[in-house]
Parts: sequence; C-alpha cells; structure tokens
Amino acid sequence: MAGPVQSIERAAAILRLLAGGPRRLGLGEVAASLGLAKGTAHGILRTLQHVDFVEQDAATGKYQLGAALLHLGTSYLDVNELRSRSINWADALAARSGEAVRLGTPLEGKVLVVHHVFRPDDTLQTLDVGSLLPLHASSLGKVLLAFGAAPLEAALEAGLETYTRHTLTTAEQLGRALTEIRELGWAAEIQEMSMGEAGLASPIRGLGGLVVGAIGLSGPVERICDGQGRPRPSLITLLREAARAISRDLGAARW
Amino acid sequence: MAGPVQSIERAAAILRLLAGGPRRLGLGEVAASLGLAKGTAHGILRTLQHVDFVEQDAATGKYQLGAALLHLGTSYLDVNELRSRSINWADALAARSGEAVRLGTPLEGKVLVVHHVFRPDDTLQTLDVGSLLPLHASSLGKVLLAFGAAPLEAALEAGLETYTRHTLTTAEQLGRALTEIRELGWAAEIQEMSMGEAGLASPIRGLGGLVVGAIGLSGPVERICDGQGRPRPSLITLLREAARAISRDLGAARW
Repeated sequence: MAGPVQSIERAAAILRLLAGGPRRLGLGEVAASLGLAKGTAHGILRTLQHVDFVEQDAATGKYQLGAALLHLGTSYLDVNELRSRSINWADALAARSGEAVRLGTPLEGKVLVVHHVFRPDDTLQTLDVGSLLPLHASSLGKVLLAFGAAPLEAALEAGLETYTRHTLTTAEQLGRALTEIRELGWAAEIQEMSMGEAGLASPIRGLGGLVVGAIGLSGPVERICDGQGRPRPSLITLLREAARAISRDLGAARW
Repeated sequence: MAGPVQSIERAAAILRLLAGGPRRLGLGEVAASLGLAKGTAHGILRTLQHVDFVEQDAATGKYQLGAALLHLGTSYLDVNELRSRSINWADALAARSGEAVRLGTPLEGKVLVVHHVFRPDDTLQTLDVGSLLPLHASSLGKVLLAFGAAPLEAALEAGLETYTRHTLTTAEQLGRALTEIRELGWAAEIQEMSMGEAGLASPIRGLGGLVVGAIGLSGPVERICDGQGRPRPSLITLLREAARAISRDLGAARW
C-alpha cells in the first residue's frame, strides 16, 4: 500500500493556511508557518497557482486562495447526498417553524455547514454554507459528538474554547450534556457560542442507522426558547420529524 | 526556478475530473481518464482522502469530492476583493433594476460566477455562485473577452459550442461582436445560451484600469429587452453606473 504523497499533503496544508485568515500571505510567512524551506514552499505555491488553486497579488506578490476552489466547493455540494436528500425537508422545516435551518457534517474537528435556509422573514441574514462551527458549542456539533459522528477525544484534545459564560468548557460538563442528548435524541445550545442566540439539533442517520449529519434550527434565544428559557417543545417536534424523514430518505429504515 | 510539482498537478486533475460530472468514479475510471497507472492514481486518491479533499463511498468504494473543498471555496469568496467591494453595489443594482445580478471572473476558459443576487421577486431561483459559464455565449464572458481579461485565442481553440441558433459560433461573428462591445462599453447576450433568456454586462476595472471582472443583469428576454428586441437603455444605464462605482472602489481612478 502506497503512503501518502508528501507534496499533496503540503499543498493541502498551504491551502488550509490561506483559508485560515482574511489576510494574504507572503512566501516567507507560508514557509515559516509550515516549517518548509522557502524553495520547497515556492515550488508548491507556483504549482497551486498554475492550477488556479492559489492567486498571487500582482502588487504585493502575496498569495491568496484561487478561483478554482470555489467551483470545486460548489461541485462538492452538488454531489453531497445528505444535502440533496435534505433540501426539500429543510425548506419545509423553515416554513413550518418560522426559523432558520442548517445542516451540518463533521469536518476536521468542527461542523461544516452544508446547507442553510434563511429564517422566512425579511431580516438580513448571512449565508453560513461552508463555514465551520465548533463541535462543543453548537447544537449541530453536540449531536455529532453525542452520536459518534465526530470523535470526542479529538475535540477534547483540541481544547474546549470559551465563547460565552455558558460554553461547556470541561470534559465533565460536555460528557454529561452528551449523555443527556443521547437519551433525549436531540441537542440544545443556549447562548453557548453567542449571547442572545440559541439552537436545537437532531441527528440524521444513513444506511444502517449510523449518524451521518445533523439538522438544526437556530435563532434569537427568545424565539427558540420559552419564557422559562427551555427549548420550545413545538420546535423540537418539527425538528425531529424532519430529521426522521431525511433519515428514511437516506435509507435508515428504523428511524 | 523550480518546475511544477507533478503530483500536485495530478491531484488537481483528479479533483477537476470528479467535479466534472454528477457521478462518483471508481479507481479504474480515474486512472484511465487521466492516463495514470492504477497504483499512482490510488496513492494520490488516498492522500486526497486523507486531507478531506476526496471522500470514498463505503458501499461502492467509488470516489467523490470531499467536504474540505467547500470550506476552501467559501474562504476564497471571503478573500475575493472584487466580490467584497461589489456586494453592496450589486444589491443596489438588483433593487433598482428589478433584475438578477451576477459577477464573473475568468477561470480556465470560462466565466466563474462569484456573486449572485436574486431578482427581487418571489420566483424560485437557483444560486449560480461557483458555476461556470461559457465565455462566448454569456454577456459576462463576452465582456471579459472584449477587454482582454480572458484570452480570445484559448476560447477559439476550445471551440465555440452551439447552445441555440443565436450562439456566435464563428471567429468572425465573435470578433465583430467583441469590437462592438469595446466601442459600446457593454455587452448583450440575447438567447445565445438559452432560448428565452438574455443578459447584459459591463466591465469592472481594477487598479490601473485593467479589466478584472464583469457585472451583469440577466433574466427573461422580454424583461431585459424592449418590444424591438433591443436591450432596455434604462437597464444599461443602471448597469454601467454600478460597474463604474465598483471600479472606483477597486482603485480604477479614471472610470
């Protein structure tokens, strides 16, 4: 069995580095960040530029992500079965609940948002597709952790970052929450990532019943929770029905 | 100067191949399509899988694009200056014109749509961000060709595909159209890609006046054109004002 191809791994690391911040990076910064010789980094960057995965700013010579990645990224969405099977259910869930709907899958210790239906009102909302949410501080992520779709050990090793005073930041707190989520079959996140915001999520199962993703509702805490600060039962019911319907479409017969 | 890194070029070719169709591909299909030995293709695919650029279907063993590409693709949008400088102007143009607005940049002999504002009505529309349009049969592409942002030679070599009976399919037709576009400062595409649809586009200039992209209006031909089948002057005026405003924001002092 052949081992991984080092230059491809390095190329991927450079792309990740460029995706990590809003700034363009110079050759020296790229080489230093990844512990590569400048000549090595330059050869990889030139090749990435040649295939349009990287662009070089004419004025400063600095590097940034390239246009071909956008086309590959949207092509990924076209072939993603979880997303294609969920689109109609997600639309219906947003219409029935009156709240924003997002679908997430695990990616490298985070939740990747693969679909986002805006809350059906006239407020200005930003498309979250492609963004990464923390596993321990989002309802989508807590579902993925609770049902084994994302490894808990890796999340703990990466550290539980504090976003608000409600964020679960110890292994004990998170462990208790995950046990409860497994019992309930759904997760809530109330002001744990952002004050004033809350979310609910439920697992999506694929062939054989394995959890392959999560679907969630999110919005202002007073919309998601009732007067006692508890998730509204009517939203939970709608959410779980949608999650079950998608799971059935994906071939999870029992759910 | 180091030459391009072959394994990275091959990895990019595999990703492009997987993006090219809706189907998952097996190892044999990937190897045969790119003229690679199976062992070579397998090593690259395994590495791409390791960095989440490719996913392997558990049931069939076939390969498809991976989730990390979605995050890279949307990160590209975040750093794209043309797009970030254009968003507010594009929103305003859609509101004033009542039509859909798209922004395009050249990518590998096509137009990559980097931003799309829906026509401000209740009709069902599909987000075109990330999709590729033909240079010779879209108003955005014709602008990029006319003002040198995309090479005409490459477009001619690739062949001028026929989409409708109005598509410009000879070098002479296209050359005359591009001369006219340079004189007018804007391009029209009337039922050249799809019967019943039309588009208008105007160049966006960056620092030093070089054309770096195009902004366009598109929609049903009866909305874009008047009773004589000519582009509505009011739309052209709104479009050119938006293009000039974005160009100024990008540092193109004279426009």
